[in-house]
Amino acid sequence: MAKPVRISVIGAGSATFSLGLVKDLCLTENLAGSSVSFMDIDAERLAAVTKMAERYTAEIGSDLSFEYTTSREDSLKDADFVINTAAVQSHYHQVDMRAVYGKHGYYYSGPGFGSYYNFNLMLDVARDMERICPDAWLIQSGNPVFDGCTLMTRQTSIKVCGLCHGHYGYHHIARTLGLDLDRIDFQAPGVNHCIWMTHFLYDGEDAYPLIDKWIEEQGPEYWDTHVAERTHDIQLSRGAVHQYRLYGLFPIGDSPRLVNWWYHTDIETKKWWFGEPFGGPDTHIARPVHVENLEKRLGQIREASADPDAKMTDLFGTTKTREQQVPIIDALTNNVEGQFQVNVPNNGAIEGIDDDVVVEVPAVINIKGIQPIQVGKLPRKIMLEQLLPMILQMEHGLEAYKTGDKSMLLWNALNNGQTQSYKQAFGALEDILGQPGNEAANEHFRFPWPEGHESVYLEE
Amino acid sequence: MAKPVRISVIGAGSATFSLGLVKDLCLTENLAGSSVSFMDIDAERLAAVTKMAERYTAEIGSDLSFEYTTSREDSLKDADFVINTAAVQSHYHQVDMRAVYGKHGYYYSGPGFGSYYNFNLMLDVARDMERICPDAWLIQSGNPVFDGCTLMTRQTSIKVCGLCHGHYGYHHIARTLGLDLDRIDFQAPGVNHCIWMTHFLYDGEDAYPLIDKWIEEQGPEYWDTHVAERTHDIQLSRGAVHQYRLYGLFPIGDSPRLVNWWYHTDIETKKWWFGEPFGGPDTHIARPVHVENLEKRLGQIREASADPDAKMTDLFGTTKTREQQVPIIDALTNNVEGQFQVNVPNNGAIEGIDDDVVVEVPAVINIKGIQPIQVGKLPRKIMLEQLLPMILQMEHGLEAYKTGDKSMLLWNALNNGQTQSYKQAFGALEDILGQPGNEAANEHFRFPWPEGHESVYLEE
Repeated sequence: MAKPVRISVIGAGSATFSLGLVKDLCLTENLAGSSVSFMDIDAERLAAVTKMAERYTAEIGSDLSFEYTTSREDSLKDADFVINTAAVQSHYHQVDMRAVYGKHGYYYSGPGFGSYYNFNLMLDVARDMERICPDAWLIQSGNPVFDGCTLMTRQTSIKVCGLCHGHYGYHHIARTLGLDLDRIDFQAPGVNHCIWMTHFLYDGEDAYPLIDKWIEEQGPEYWDTHVAERTHDIQLSRGAVHQYRLYGLFPIGDSPRLVNWWYHTDIETKKWWFGEPFGGPDTHIARPVHVENLEKRLGQIREASADPDAKMTDLFGTTKTREQQVPIIDALTNNVEGQFQVNVPNNGAIEGIDDDVVVEVPAVINIKGIQPIQVGKLPRKIMLEQLLPMILQMEHGLEAYKTGDKSMLLWNALNNGQTQSYKQAFGALEDILGQPGNEAANEHFRFPWPEGHESVYLEE
Repeated sequence: MAKPVRISVIGAGSATFSLGLVKDLCLTENLAGSSVSFMDIDAERLAAVTKMAERYTAEIGSDLSFEYTTSREDSLKDADFVINTAAVQSHYHQVDMRAVYGKHGYYYSGPGFGSYYNFNLMLDVARDMERICPDAWLIQSGNPVFDGCTLMTRQTSIKVCGLCHGHYGYHHIARTLGLDLDRIDFQAPGVNHCIWMTHFLYDGEDAYPLIDKWIEEQGPEYWDTHVAERTHDIQLSRGAVHQYRLYGLFPIGDSPRLVNWWYHTDIETKKWWFGEPFGGPDTHIARPVHVENLEKRLGQIREASADPDAKMTDLFGTTKTREQQVPIIDALTNNVEGQFQVNVPNNGAIEGIDDDVVVEVPAVINIKGIQPIQVGKLPRKIMLEQLLPMILQMEHGLEAYKTGDKSMLLWNALNNGQTQSYKQAFGALEDILGQPGNEAANEHFRFPWPEGHESVYLEE
């Protein structure tokens, strides 16, 4: 089979993402003749991306066609697939927020209003799809995948598949241990950003003992002396191994970095658990490096974009990315069956999780659709300490979003491990909601009592 | 119907509890001719309690008969009802523990090993019952009711009914508002120590507006000037009303005092939320007063017990207590139907809670058994912020107990709102487990890695 499709990309202003997608499409013969509609609210970036896409396609001799628009409705028209990669608030805004957190005694992150803006955007996209292209697949590629996909699949009738890179974290383990990726069998189910490596085999044999040996023989020296080159390079950090010790399975990708507040109280603690020099990706040292790398890349792209002689194929390469979007489109459209790591409603794939919670599991994808593999039970301790609390937090976040109940934000703030008093959480939340850029959230969330009444409950 | 029964009382050394029971039995004509077997490990107290029971019965002219034994097996023989009121560790031991908490920066309570000793005792009793009196009802009257009853009903085939006084907390609201108890309709389901007043009617009309009026007109002055006479007198405290503001329903009895760590960080904060002079029942000021009252009462009892001329009816009165044990026994035995507040497996009584979790709900009790009233849904916010987290914590505690996994105690310690670092929680837990009196718990709980390995993960 070889059938062209029409793909709408929401948030297409990201050149790295969009050109990666174009490359994968160009390199997938089955999808020859497909058309892509780039949509973003930034018309200038959109035009630049589209131009680059056309140059890339011309260089490589593909017949993909492109259009771009700032109208989501136009972009969605006749779409077979919608890829949503948009995020509402920027890195720079996050930097401002972090300063507020610091003022209130929180390191790096603190009280907030959840994913208010991204939830709005996701629901807007999914609801537009219900009207305009109700049979299209939505491939959700922007965060929060877990919460957002659960929200969209509950509130709309759209078919949603959430994607994330995190599960590739096992590549880092393999590299560090000197293992050949092709000889590994791997599985890591859970919910997005909380997945656990239930299977790690090498040539068909359990390879966990190889990790144990590495920890025993090389772990302590690695933790004392290793200097990470990349901010996200934490897969064998003391913190990740500590979680392995606690749970008997490795947390993969983003999983070790986001849980257990006590790893994250200050920069020295973070360095202890996640290594020098960054302390993992979520520190005031790491983040600027990450943003700088993004900017550097953006600079290269801008430069090449402005230079009519530059080769787009030099800039973006001519080998497929490891992104799953295009292979999944090919599988669903042309029956090129494969197994993928996807985020879809549980429906029994993991035991003990409600059917309507979006889980991250391996799935067989072909023309029949996305069919998750039933992975059964995860260890009870992981359920009780990691997955169920995270699911409860997600449900709490969705309820807060739905009701606009500000006291639910406060409750969340109070349950932040770094919070030491009611007053601290209250003050930080008020301050965050009062920041420029957060006006709509501030408008949405209201205490369930008359204005000013909360002051009665603030210790003097 | 009027059928005598045989009742075994485990932990009968508590004179207040046992004589209250004797009084209620004497005042329940249907149960004339019943026999009570008092069991305790303290033979001296047991003998004294039995003697007093005999004197009370003689004074009042009842034909109850008594025996006492330090052998649980003997006591359980032929029992129709077993009342377990035993608690393993004493007030004095708790005082020692609190000193350790203080040393590690926790106010009043901190890291622990859950209900290890009481779980052991409860399972021992229930398993003995399976052998000796498998058809008897177990009326569990000692804490932890929620966790313990869930454990016993899952692990044994014994019929269990847990009881607590907490729901009478609404009496305090009624008294403060000047309402007549007999004209109130009340309902407060949940799980033990986390129940929420869904119904509060006066002469058939919703009486919540009367509370609202009181809060509006008298609340602020009450909070600023009221001086509690009793340590447990917190039902209309700023903290309880704050929870009402948050959830739209009043938390009843022990419910407002045990949740939300931020009310409990130090004595000044506790006084703010739970009033002068005690700051609620769980402070270093309140606890000695509470223990002193118990001791004073115990002194009176001891004195009267030693005085052959003292009247037991003077000491214990001749009106029924408000305890539910005897009326429930009468209902089950003699079909004197009533509605009671009991703790039994959910089986659908509250929506959204697993069937095998013990909930606190109203139940119709008669010769057919204990039949919970299906109370339906509780507000989603209460489920998400109070009940489901508490149920998850219960499940976590049972799993830690079952597996003896010390790192689950550590996880719990880390998730104590007062904990500020991994090292603090780790140190406090080690210290608590090392205290005299905690040897068996210290033996039971082990880290899931080789001895000494945890030091690798302790920041230097």
